[in-house]
Amino acid sequence: MSVGGVGEFGLIDRVTARLTYGSGCLLGPGDDGAVVAAPDARVVASTDVLVEGRHFRRDWSGARDVGHRAAAANLADIAAMGATPTALLVALCMPTDLETAWAEELADGLAAEAAKVGASVVGGDMSASPTLTIAVTALGDLGGRAPVVRSGARPGDVVAVAGRSGWAAAGLTVLSRGFRTPRLLVEAYRRPEVPYAAGPHAARLGATAMIDISDGLLADLGHVAKASGVGLDVHRDAFEVPRQMRDAAQALGVDPYSWILAGGDDHALAATFPRSVALPDEWRPVGRVVEGAGVTVDGEKYDGRGWDHFR
Amino acid sequence: MSVGGVGEFGLIDRVTARLTYGSGCLLGPGDDGAVVAAPDARVVASTDVLVEGRHFRRDWSGARDVGHRAAAANLADIAAMGATPTALLVALCMPTDLETAWAEELADGLAAEAAKVGASVVGGDMSASPTLTIAVTALGDLGGRAPVVRSGARPGDVVAVAGRSGWAAAGLTVLSRGFRTPRLLVEAYRRPEVPYAAGPHAARLGATAMIDISDGLLADLGHVAKASGVGLDVHRDAFEVPRQMRDAAQALGVDPYSWILAGGDDHALAATFPRSVALPDEWRPVGRVVEGAGVTVDGEKYDGRGWDHFR
Repeated sequence: MSVGGVGEFGLIDRVTARLTYGSGCLLGPGDDGAVVAAPDARVVASTDVLVEGRHFRRDWSGARDVGHRAAAANLADIAAMGATPTALLVALCMPTDLETAWAEELADGLAAEAAKVGASVVGGDMSASPTLTIAVTALGDLGGRAPVVRSGARPGDVVAVAGRSGWAAAGLTVLSRGFRTPRLLVEAYRRPEVPYAAGPHAARLGATAMIDISDGLLADLGHVAKASGVGLDVHRDAFEVPRQMRDAAQALGVDPYSWILAGGDDHALAATFPRSVALPDEWRPVGRVVEGAGVTVDGEKYDGRGWDHFR
Repeated sequence: MSVGGVGEFGLIDRVTARLTYGSGCLLGPGDDGAVVAAPDARVVASTDVLVEGRHFRRDWSGARDVGHRAAAANLADIAAMGATPTALLVALCMPTDLETAWAEELADGLAAEAAKVGASVVGGDMSASPTLTIAVTALGDLGGRAPVVRSGARPGDVVAVAGRSGWAAAGLTVLSRGFRTPRLLVEAYRRPEVPYAAGPHAARLGATAMIDISDGLLADLGHVAKASGVGLDVHRDAFEVPRQMRDAAQALGVDPYSWILAGGDDHALAATFPRSVALPDEWRPVGRVVEGAGVTVDGEKYDGRGWDHFR
């Protein structure tokens, strides 16, 4: 059955029947708006859109995978503010000949990823469109803490990363060369493992700046450097190249550091901390905040680059 | 200059430079997430998506008009819950050859419509896409009141409407027949006049159910009837046909009541109230809640229908 055949309201019924709701969802889908708990009396909100052919391909990722990744991209933004995600809203634009199963499995993936952090899909909208498009808005709660913004990095701070770097980019390269293995890398692209809890942890530890790594480590650190009016120097040796990544890089003729330093889509978190902070294991020191501007690798410019969604 | 030429970050800079922020915006665009005041400790959230060729046409509406309408559709959903809108987030997908001026004027329209209720555009995302698509999420605050849901209508309640009915549908018919006048109707389609304040007013008056009329009065009242397990009977004579609508209907060979009863896009509000409530002028009684199911017009079935976004 196609989404055109079942119609807007039929599809909404099918999808919402598969959803479950966390305690923060005070009123779920089915009305003009959802109602979500905001105990902090402030709400963190972020929107990310995925467009077929640009952010995902149906022959590279299943519907559930796309759901996981669409949710992860947004939930990571909430975590990067130091907040705990509470809810997702999803605008889904679909060709009318899309199988309803695809939309249903997408919803399963979105809901499963949200459930990892106790959040739920509380609402959304659907429309026909020639271009399969998924726009997700995530909400989150700061739990009484100040948001950790990009502009607070100060010279002398330590730069640290929580989560994987380069795995998703490696997986994407593998897929784009027509391969399906190594599975570990391909799965890292399909369903990023985001260290959600590390965001609020960093806020409690006194992080001075934080960002979600979606466009590539150096590109995203560049946003922190610009917003903070500082330079950031990253130590290449702080990143271990896992065996499977090294093997894949050799087989594909790629420098694995181009994945680690410039690849996006892992949705790791990067933050800066005062030197006095004792970092827990989840936050690996990878560099230092310095006077100046821009991002360097071991003191030198790096020619890799991140991702511009118009180029 | 095209959006492809100026690039993602260049366009974000251009657009955000045009925005202003209300007092509810605690942290605006430029970080991983925005922070919005939620004084009620609950947040109302709603998402609506507009797809070119399905929800708007660039030859029928200017970019500013589309911005006004995209914002209005979402802000009306918040009002229909009895809440006051606080913020919008906007995911904008654009062909790379779109002029940057179009995106900038769209943002102007979104911001101007939001400003009418003291809300602001606090964040969003942009991507290239073959299909021009605007997904908007609106947030709002309940001010300590219970949300007014669709399921509370009780037999004996009065059905009332705030705002215009049929004007936008008339304007759309005018445009679809290749005309540009009467201007009053065309403008009603391009920039709906939503009675935002009537939403929270209705909540304070004790409305038992409420909905935003986006798919057509009878279709949307049908959602209330279904959710509440009641019937709704609408009195046709409660709707006056304005002179310009009557003239246009005659010229185009259309029954003006098909616009009033089945036309969408005005984003008027419909609500049900206990009979004991003294309705202010902004809420016009148009019918009665009855035992049974479905929506009737003067006791009879009406063959007009609302809008399904897949048909």
